[in-house]
Amino acid sequence: MSESPKNSPLLTPLAASLPATVPFVGPEAQERATGQPFKARLGANESVFGPSPNAIRAMRQAVKDMWMYGDPESHDLRAALGKHLNVAMDEIVVGAGIDGLLDSLVRLTVTNGTPVVTSAGAYPTFNYHVKGYGGTLHTVAYTADHEDPDHLIAKAREVGAKLIYMSNPDNPMGTVHSANTIQRMIESVPEGCLLILDEAYIDLAPRGSAPALNTKNDRVIRMRTFSKGYGMAGARVGYAVGHASLIDAFNRVRNHFGMNRISQIGALAALADQDWLADVCDKVETSRQALYQIAEDNGLDALQSATNFVAIDCGGDGVFARAVLDNLVAQGIFVRMPFVAPQDCCIRISCGAPKDMTLVAKALPKALAAARAGTQNL
Amino acid sequence: MSESPKNSPLLTPLAASLPATVPFVGPEAQERATGQPFKARLGANESVFGPSPNAIRAMRQAVKDMWMYGDPESHDLRAALGKHLNVAMDEIVVGAGIDGLLDSLVRLTVTNGTPVVTSAGAYPTFNYHVKGYGGTLHTVAYTADHEDPDHLIAKAREVGAKLIYMSNPDNPMGTVHSANTIQRMIESVPEGCLLILDEAYIDLAPRGSAPALNTKNDRVIRMRTFSKGYGMAGARVGYAVGHASLIDAFNRVRNHFGMNRISQIGALAALADQDWLADVCDKVETSRQALYQIAEDNGLDALQSATNFVAIDCGGDGVFARAVLDNLVAQGIFVRMPFVAPQDCCIRISCGAPKDMTLVAKALPKALAAARAGTQNL
Repeated sequence: MSESPKNSPLLTPLAASLPATVPFVGPEAQERATGQPFKARLGANESVFGPSPNAIRAMRQAVKDMWMYGDPESHDLRAALGKHLNVAMDEIVVGAGIDGLLDSLVRLTVTNGTPVVTSAGAYPTFNYHVKGYGGTLHTVAYTADHEDPDHLIAKAREVGAKLIYMSNPDNPMGTVHSANTIQRMIESVPEGCLLILDEAYIDLAPRGSAPALNTKNDRVIRMRTFSKGYGMAGARVGYAVGHASLIDAFNRVRNHFGMNRISQIGALAALADQDWLADVCDKVETSRQALYQIAEDNGLDALQSATNFVAIDCGGDGVFARAVLDNLVAQGIFVRMPFVAPQDCCIRISCGAPKDMTLVAKALPKALAAARAGTQNL
Repeated sequence: MSESPKNSPLLTPLAASLPATVPFVGPEAQERATGQPFKARLGANESVFGPSPNAIRAMRQAVKDMWMYGDPESHDLRAALGKHLNVAMDEIVVGAGIDGLLDSLVRLTVTNGTPVVTSAGAYPTFNYHVKGYGGTLHTVAYTADHEDPDHLIAKAREVGAKLIYMSNPDNPMGTVHSANTIQRMIESVPEGCLLILDEAYIDLAPRGSAPALNTKNDRVIRMRTFSKGYGMAGARVGYAVGHASLIDAFNRVRNHFGMNRISQIGALAALADQDWLADVCDKVETSRQALYQIAEDNGLDALQSATNFVAIDCGGDGVFARAVLDNLVAQGIFVRMPFVAPQDCCIRISCGAPKDMTLVAKALPKALAAARAGTQNL
C-alpha cells in the first residue's frame, strides 16, 4: 500500500495520534499482490465446513428481502439466544461480530488514559479499540502458552484497570482453561473492573470449558460469535451477554440499524441447528488430529487446541517461523502466526477439510526446508 | 419497553450522560406491539422495488461463501466505485451504511464541546453520533421546507463549527437544491470546517442536483448508499468520497472486518446494473405522482420530492399530523413523520408499488377523518 497522506487538520488530537496500522491484512490483499488465489484458506480461523444447510437455505430465501432494513433490536435472534442460554433478552446485545461489540464496549468504558489489561500477544483488534479510544494498555506474559488469569488479575489490581481482556479458548495459541479456573478468575475481578471474556471459540472447546452464565454479576461480560463454530464469519453476527445495566448501555452508542437483515435470519437458523454444530465439532477434531500428525511427521510440536486452529511450534525463533509462513503463503496456503514473542515461534493453521490437510502436509516440509536453507544463508 | 436499568458504574462520564433514546423505532417493534404485520411498509424510505435481479442472483450465489470474512479493504467495490465516479480508490471508504460512516467520521473529528451545525429536524442519527462523542449541536431552521445553505454556513462561522451536516436531497422533506446552489455552499465552507454532504437520495433526484465530485477539496465529504435507489437497505453498504487525507483516517478507527461478504458482492452487481437503477427511478416517479394525487384528492398539499418519499402537509399542527399517522399505522400502513416543528405538520410516505398506493389512497381519508374527529373531541 502507498504511504499514508498527511493528517487531515480536522482530526481530534486523539485521532491524529493514532497509527495508520490495521489489525490484520486480509487474504484477498495477499491474493491481489501475488495475482494467485490461495489453494487453501487456513489463516483466519474461518470454518471451511460452512454454516448449517438450514442457515444457507434461510439466507438464500431472505436475499429477496434485502430491500428492508434489519430489525434494529435483533428481537427474534435475541429471543432465541436468550432461550438457548437461559438468560433474559435484555441481558443480550447483538452486534457486527465480536469486533463491533468490542468497539462499542471500549467506547462506553475507556477514555484518555483509562488503564486496560490484556496478555502480550492476545487479540490485536481489542488493542486497536483500546488505543483508538485513548486507553492505556498494560500487558502480562503468557504462561506455558496459556493466558494467565492470576497474572491478569494481579496486573489489573496493580494498575487499577477498568477492563481485563481474556479469551477462553485463547487465540492465537488455541489453549483453554477449565470452567473452574475461569470461574475463580471471575470471582477475583476487582471492584470497578470488568472482565471481557471472549468466548469466540467456546463452541469448539471441550464441554466444561465455560463456567455457567451469571448475568447478576456485573464484573464480567461474555462475548460469542456465529463466525467460528457456526461458520458464518462473512455474516458479521456476534453477541455479548452480561448484566442488564451494561448491556443496556450499548443502546446509547451502537449503530442501531447496522445489522444485515439476512445475517440475522441466518444466525437464527444456525442456532436452531445444534446437530450441525456438533457435526462441525467432529470435523474440527478430525482436522486437529491431522494437524498434530503433520507437525509430528515434521519433527515439530503442536499445541493441543480447543479451537478450530492449531499452533505449531516451528522450532526456531520468530524470524524462522515467519520464513516458514512466508513460504507456505508462496505455495498458496494462507496461514497466520502470533504477533508477539515468544509465541511467535509458532505458525497458526486453521482446521480444514481433508483436501486442505493434504495440501498442508505436502507444503510444510518444503516450507521448513526453505526456511532452514534461508536461515543458513543469513 | 421496560424502564432502563440504572447506569453501570463502568461507563465513562460521557457515556453515563447519554440518553437511552434511539434514533428510530423499527417497524418490526410496532408489528410485535400490535401483533399484526404491516400491509404496506412505507415508513423507512426503503425501496419496495428491491435490488437489481443481477444483485439478487449474485447474493444468492454468494451465500455458500458466508464462511469467509469479507475483504477488509472492500477492494473490488471501491475499484468499481472509483471507476464509476472517476475518483481514486483511496478517495473512497466503504462502511456499514451512511450511519456507520457518520459514526466513524464524527469519532474522528468531534470531542467534548466540538461545535457542529445542522438543521433543526434533519437526520436524527447524525445528531445521535454528535451527542455520542460529546459534540455540541447548533441548529438553524429550514427555509420553505428546504435546508438552508446560507443559514448553515452563517451559523458555522458564528459558532466556529468543525462540521456542517446537510442532506441533498433532504430527508425528511424530500426537497432538493440545484448543483449550483450546493457548489456555492461548498465554496463558502469556512477554513477548519468540513461539510458532510449526505447524498443518500441523490440517485433518485433530477440530474443536475449533484455538483461534480472534487476530491482535492478537503472541506467537503460526500456520502452515498446502496440502501435507497439501489434497494439494498438490509445489506448495509454505504460509501464516502473525499480528500484522501480524510478518507485514509477512517482506517484508524473503522471496523476493518465489519463488512458483510455478500453485501459487498451484491453492491458490486447492483452498481453494474445502471439500467435497473433507471427503471427504479421511473417507478419512483410514478409513485411520487400517485402520492401527489392522493394528497390533492384529500385537499392536502404534498411537497415536490426529489427522493423516494413524499412529505404531505396534513394541514394542521404536529399533534394533528401525529394523529393522522397513528391512524394510518393502526390501519396497517407503516409511515413516519418529521420530528421537529414546523416540519412536523407533515407525514412522510415512502414510494411504493401500485398496490401500496391503493392502500394509502384508501387509508388516508379514514385517517384524516379520525384525526379530525379526535381533535374535535379534545
